[in-house]
Amino acid sequence: MGHTPGLKPSARGVIVEFIQKMVRSAGRDGVTLGVSGGIDSAVCAALGVEALGAERVHPLILPYGGSDRRHVKDAIRVCELLRLKYNVIDIKPACDSIIALTCKGSRVDAGNIRARVRMIILYHEARCKNLLVMGTGNKSEILIGYFTKYGDGGADLMPIGDLYKTEVRELANELKLPEWIIRKTPTAGLWSGQTDEDEIGMKYEKLDRVLCGIEHDLSDEEIMRIASVSREEILRIREMVERSAHKRMVPRIPKVGYRTVGIDWRE
Amino acid sequence: MGHTPGLKPSARGVIVEFIQKMVRSAGRDGVTLGVSGGIDSAVCAALGVEALGAERVHPLILPYGGSDRRHVKDAIRVCELLRLKYNVIDIKPACDSIIALTCKGSRVDAGNIRARVRMIILYHEARCKNLLVMGTGNKSEILIGYFTKYGDGGADLMPIGDLYKTEVRELANELKLPEWIIRKTPTAGLWSGQTDEDEIGMKYEKLDRVLCGIEHDLSDEEIMRIASVSREEILRIREMVERSAHKRMVPRIPKVGYRTVGIDWRE
Repeated sequence: MGHTPGLKPSARGVIVEFIQKMVRSAGRDGVTLGVSGGIDSAVCAALGVEALGAERVHPLILPYGGSDRRHVKDAIRVCELLRLKYNVIDIKPACDSIIALTCKGSRVDAGNIRARVRMIILYHEARCKNLLVMGTGNKSEILIGYFTKYGDGGADLMPIGDLYKTEVRELANELKLPEWIIRKTPTAGLWSGQTDEDEIGMKYEKLDRVLCGIEHDLSDEEIMRIASVSREEILRIREMVERSAHKRMVPRIPKVGYRTVGIDWRE
Repeated sequence: MGHTPGLKPSARGVIVEFIQKMVRSAGRDGVTLGVSGGIDSAVCAALGVEALGAERVHPLILPYGGSDRRHVKDAIRVCELLRLKYNVIDIKPACDSIIALTCKGSRVDAGNIRARVRMIILYHEARCKNLLVMGTGNKSEILIGYFTKYGDGGADLMPIGDLYKTEVRELANELKLPEWIIRKTPTAGLWSGQTDEDEIGMKYEKLDRVLCGIEHDLSDEEIMRIASVSREEILRIREMVERSAHKRMVPRIPKVGYRTVGIDWRE
């Protein structure tokens, strides 16, 4: 206990209170979030409903063209299950008009553009309706940098940002979300057929054990035993955590002023 | 000294080293930045050239339609002065295609979309050419929240982020940038005819003295004396600093895990 992932009994209550406090102290009327049809956004939406009531949660479903019809269907099921009013907005025209302006990139670049266009639309929705933007990232993704800086990484609050993916599944169970959501293959939806675990090269069960070991400053030997992974795999994950550190920080600013109270943005 | 703004003699050297170190440690080949025709981006570009050489600084000029032809001209003059190769990209089609997808917003909303589309294009350029994205925000703007979250506030490094606007002018002098840049009326270019000081309701000379006083924990009486402002004006600036605090932070995450080493993203 403690050295392996596992949902704290208090987690649900702490997160619900956190959402309430954030919305209240910002003087907003609720939250908006992108619902993808996957487990993370389903759990975030459910927590939002528990904290604020369904009428104060404003989900957007933001597919890219017709490529992810199945996920749109799942996203609609999630919204209907939670009795949420939703809007579906196809982001393809906006993404394509940005791509038309720039050098030809890879599919990763296209994925980054999609994530950032979603951020823009969520913030626009938030301004129009006086809401906060809820990000749906989990701790596993955040720690290995498996998100787009200022894309899905750009939000006001991240309710499940301190829960490993496997803990999000436990919470989904606790929230009585249906089995099909919990068992669905995780995908960032960056391109068609993409799955997280293919890209990361490891199942979340293993990844979370490695990350938890790293967080507890365990030695490679201990992590190898706990997570049944090779030393090379641990090294690879350690590198992902280190190399993505900049994505978990505000922009770096060199300290050249006489005093710097009130500004966190520095080296 | 110390309680009023004023450029430290070491500032230029510290910033130049900072840029070199950031680019080197990230394994990138240089920087990209948006050049607007104003003083902040001119100073950042000049510092970039001093740190890396002109061939490793890749400016983009990102106007919205034909509305800011004068600023585009000025931006081109800045690039030519520094012997930089630049590209001009009209962001209007991309912004308009996003606006077409969303509810009708105010001109502030339109400005936010422009700032965020610029961020997307700069990050795309950075990916294509293996560069870091240099933000051009200064300390005055950052402290009062006069920037778009995940728009111009979205960058990898902010070389002049610890310099007040009036100190940026001193640095521009030191860098021998031409008078017309230094004297140009500051504008965020969010809409036509907009000027910073109109919007903020105070000249930068005054604002910087108030901010410096706040940073030094001076009493209202002392700030009134140093900056020649009313108590109401000080209160207004204090509120701007407080209410924009969320823009200077990473997304808020409730602490619900057993351990949280290596992740800064929390409440």
